[in-house]
Amino acid sequence: MNLEILPIHGLPKIKPGDDLIGMLGECGKIKSRDILVVTQKIISKAENQLVAIDPSDPLSHKPLVEKESVRILRRRGELIISETKHGFVCANAGIDLSNVERGQAALLPEDSDRSAQRLRDGLKGRFGFDVAIIISDTFGRPWRKGLTDVAIGSAGITPILDLRGEPDALGREMQVTEVALVDELASAAELVMGKSSGIPVAIVRGGDPTWFAEGSVKESLIRDPNDDLFR
Amino acid sequence: MNLEILPIHGLPKIKPGDDLIGMLGECGKIKSRDILVVTQKIISKAENQLVAIDPSDPLSHKPLVEKESVRILRRRGELIISETKHGFVCANAGIDLSNVERGQAALLPEDSDRSAQRLRDGLKGRFGFDVAIIISDTFGRPWRKGLTDVAIGSAGITPILDLRGEPDALGREMQVTEVALVDELASAAELVMGKSSGIPVAIVRGGDPTWFAEGSVKESLIRDPNDDLFR
Repeated sequence: MNLEILPIHGLPKIKPGDDLIGMLGECGKIKSRDILVVTQKIISKAENQLVAIDPSDPLSHKPLVEKESVRILRRRGELIISETKHGFVCANAGIDLSNVERGQAALLPEDSDRSAQRLRDGLKGRFGFDVAIIISDTFGRPWRKGLTDVAIGSAGITPILDLRGEPDALGREMQVTEVALVDELASAAELVMGKSSGIPVAIVRGGDPTWFAEGSVKESLIRDPNDDLFR
Repeated sequence: MNLEILPIHGLPKIKPGDDLIGMLGECGKIKSRDILVVTQKIISKAENQLVAIDPSDPLSHKPLVEKESVRILRRRGELIISETKHGFVCANAGIDLSNVERGQAALLPEDSDRSAQRLRDGLKGRFGFDVAIIISDTFGRPWRKGLTDVAIGSAGITPILDLRGEPDALGREMQVTEVALVDELASAAELVMGKSSGIPVAIVRGGDPTWFAEGSVKESLIRDPNDDLFR
């Protein structure tokens, strides 16, 4: 199995109310069985998850961070690591000031799985494309420097490949292995997006047929706080 | 920029002392400027990082876990999350029993950056291929279920893309963004490896020219314990 990862160039700048389904359906790049990885930022913009902030105050988005959080895990200086109302643990409740207009902050989509499902349904219903959708965002992590893109919502793709009980290459039962498929796909797509080039959608083409199934990030990927050793 | 991700099929089962450089150099798939992602397992085997364990005792590798660790972060039942002597925080000190012979456990390579550098130098010196090397392993993480592949060693590729100070797509200076390039590449490569199909090496082709530079996982990617909020 070979995979291709293709950026979608030429999408216009997204504003509240824009018809993302139409833009993607008509971009001329998409085929059925593609996996479309769409950055959170354009979903938040299209869904008008934008909030006015005071552009002269570098900390004016901080009250928003508290409002979007249900539990603060750590604070250091201006950095807050919290659990958001959506269940994600990340910095500053996923609120981002880059690639939005000055004086605005973009909140995470209300329900990224639902946003993904709506895109999937629209591309199928209006254009006949049967694609999987992943909504991606850029998160840090403990212990390792740097950020990677992960999935915050998905539709039409199984978030976790459960290989437990399958034989390994030597025929023994594997001990692990639940692969966080949608996170690996989000990271793969980020490689062609480039933070500074502003490409908000990429296609992963050639995915294994077994990947395409129903499932959501919320139900499959978020670890129950009671099972978590680091919360 | 389009990327291709290609599994390398047909490599023989690796044993201690095997000439990985020769096998990869002669496999007929590699070009200069490829990024080769090689799983830890075959590096550990080729470098004979194998230790005998009692196959009738499911916990016989646990003393090894303690020996390979410098600090235990969490324990729950049989699971140990520790900092290894190499500086990684992971489950069971990276010691793995899958895809090794019964009665053996595979430790992590002594120095995965050095292993990567040796592969890179050998492929260049003996075959003229100027490639980047990433040694990958499969780690869990807090807060999110499932595992993803990350880099534990690298050569000929910059581990972290430091975009801080570059303008974003709207011309403002970006707040973040240090992208953990080698981790995203390791995750991308895992997508074509498949835990059960035993493909230990994949090629990522088409990488941006700016990615190719010297650097090591140890120096660039491991977070200083003093800067870490979750240790």
